[in-house]
Amino acid sequence: MTDEAYMRLALSLAKKGSGKVDPNPMVGAVIVKDGRIIGQGFHQKYGGLHAERNALADCTESASGATLYVTLEPCCHWGKTPPCTDAVIQNGIRRVVVGSPDPNPLVGGKGVRILREHGISVTEGVLREECNQLNEPFFYFIQHHVPYGILKYAMTMDGKIATATSLSKWITGEEAREQVHRDRNRYTVILVGVGTVLADDPLLTCRLPEGGQNPVRVICDTHLRTPLTAKVVTTAGRVPTLLATCCADTQRQEPYRKAGCEILQIPKKNSHVDLAQLMQELGRRKLDSVIVEGGAELNWSALQSGIIEKVQAYIAPKLFGGAAAKSPIGGTGAASPQDAVRLSPPTITRLGDDLLLESRVL
Amino acid sequence: MTDEAYMRLALSLAKKGSGKVDPNPMVGAVIVKDGRIIGQGFHQKYGGLHAERNALADCTESASGATLYVTLEPCCHWGKTPPCTDAVIQNGIRRVVVGSPDPNPLVGGKGVRILREHGISVTEGVLREECNQLNEPFFYFIQHHVPYGILKYAMTMDGKIATATSLSKWITGEEAREQVHRDRNRYTVILVGVGTVLADDPLLTCRLPEGGQNPVRVICDTHLRTPLTAKVVTTAGRVPTLLATCCADTQRQEPYRKAGCEILQIPKKNSHVDLAQLMQELGRRKLDSVIVEGGAELNWSALQSGIIEKVQAYIAPKLFGGAAAKSPIGGTGAASPQDAVRLSPPTITRLGDDLLLESRVL
Repeated sequence: MTDEAYMRLALSLAKKGSGKVDPNPMVGAVIVKDGRIIGQGFHQKYGGLHAERNALADCTESASGATLYVTLEPCCHWGKTPPCTDAVIQNGIRRVVVGSPDPNPLVGGKGVRILREHGISVTEGVLREECNQLNEPFFYFIQHHVPYGILKYAMTMDGKIATATSLSKWITGEEAREQVHRDRNRYTVILVGVGTVLADDPLLTCRLPEGGQNPVRVICDTHLRTPLTAKVVTTAGRVPTLLATCCADTQRQEPYRKAGCEILQIPKKNSHVDLAQLMQELGRRKLDSVIVEGGAELNWSALQSGIIEKVQAYIAPKLFGGAAAKSPIGGTGAASPQDAVRLSPPTITRLGDDLLLESRVL
Repeated sequence: MTDEAYMRLALSLAKKGSGKVDPNPMVGAVIVKDGRIIGQGFHQKYGGLHAERNALADCTESASGATLYVTLEPCCHWGKTPPCTDAVIQNGIRRVVVGSPDPNPLVGGKGVRILREHGISVTEGVLREECNQLNEPFFYFIQHHVPYGILKYAMTMDGKIATATSLSKWITGEEAREQVHRDRNRYTVILVGVGTVLADDPLLTCRLPEGGQNPVRVICDTHLRTPLTAKVVTTAGRVPTLLATCCADTQRQEPYRKAGCEILQIPKKNSHVDLAQLMQELGRRKLDSVIVEGGAELNWSALQSGIIEKVQAYIAPKLFGGAAAKSPIGGTGAASPQDAVRLSPPTITRLGDDLLLESRVL
């Protein structure tokens, strides 16, 4: 097997940590000796052992002289656990193959340097792009200290998120909707506007057959109009729920607090909650990624505020038609085609009959 | 090489007839003897020799005992040329491998039967799906006697065909626009509404670096509002141009006729040109395929009239936003998601940074 093949195995191990290691990165590791895999591991949960140590613990024989494949540069500092570089050195690993460099500008490259200083051969950047992709939100957050923003919507092949009669259940099929729930497990926060709460009364939880981690729910509610009977409020005792509002009236805030919601008071901008300020506040709480599932107006505001890094467009093979049917992004819109928000060429995933197009905002 | 591999070569030969053989099908043929290709041919232009005869004429040695690969069942009747089955038999071909059966319900299967009666071994249906795809409009037309309708539009990844300020130049990039012109070469008719003529004054010709066949231009113009100065009128002398109208006033029709346009008087339905009637009329003229490049209202009417078999959605990786920006299909739209026009899961073609999604209407 090639370095790439072992790294691909490490990547697939890393993904098993999805939804469980946040705000740590997902990491996988494979230990190979004389062409045999003698240990495998991944970072399983926040605060738990790192992938390298799990792989070493999994070894069926001494790792002395072996090669370690790891999707992320081994850490060289004390966090919740001791430095992984120590464990690699102590176990007599002879060669280390790394996917992503450590994204933290203060430590990036140090782990590799320490290993080399101890006579260990290091190969960097194997499947680097895939390894980076895996932890995009983590990498972004550690560099910018605000959450990685994902704009997600589902539309028909003629660009409608609802019929002209405002009905939207359902546009996509089961496979696509399951992917949505996998992302709710993977990412930390889900953000909607109060309009969505008033119209659909959604639960916004992660519902996967195998279970999963609910995202923190954030409702953008400038004037505090969320009904106290809304599901997001009545379930706030068991699912973390934040109301982002410009309303400073503590008396009006009180019943939401009693129901278990937290109130985030955010400055106003263009008569709405200032989304950039909201992201700063979420960043201070170490929430590293936000899925924006807004209506058309919130989606436009989010783009205009510069808080979106990635767009996820689910496309169903059907046509609604309707001059009055809404498309996913509203607001004033670009003044001319030259002013469009530019995206990277999308990656394409087939989910049943539907497509998922994913692009970075350029 | 396998049967599939030779048939794939025949398919690629067939495509060289694109835009030149209409209303005949594109057909390619390869003759193989003792594992060597000894002749190749395709149907080159309407009225010319069929692919089988071109391949036989191309043979570098006797075709006696050889295998013929042909994308469409050989004809067995006198048309503009004598039956191909005769030529196959006379040249001593021992085996024939066929892609598509003849779609004409009156002759389908007859060619194959005649060959077998002459002791020739026949294998049917090799790459049948691809061979059928190649001549979809031809197959449809021969069975329904009305043109094959294609709804084509270009939109942003948020479903907009123009900005909120009604600007649409350009949404897609050069590769996608070149594909549009290849389709104008391939298909027979291009249909737009008078609204598009008034707004954009388009030429609607086929502009390819290597040249190509202009489609017949049909303007849907219920009240005969096309300006006499419009490009489609001033160039009607060199590019066939039909005005489909409900206006029976011959005096108002006269100047268009003088400019070289033909007037198609079509009954009214829902206060517009009856599109199904228009398609019948185009069918009577042996026009076998129509690209509808309408505005949102014409597109909806076309779908509602049941004249669309295929949808081509070009998607550009950009976002316009804008609550007032148009999406590709307008009109009243579906009353509920259950009433959506259902499409087959799309095929996907990357054209530069853009995507082309193509689906059949189910």
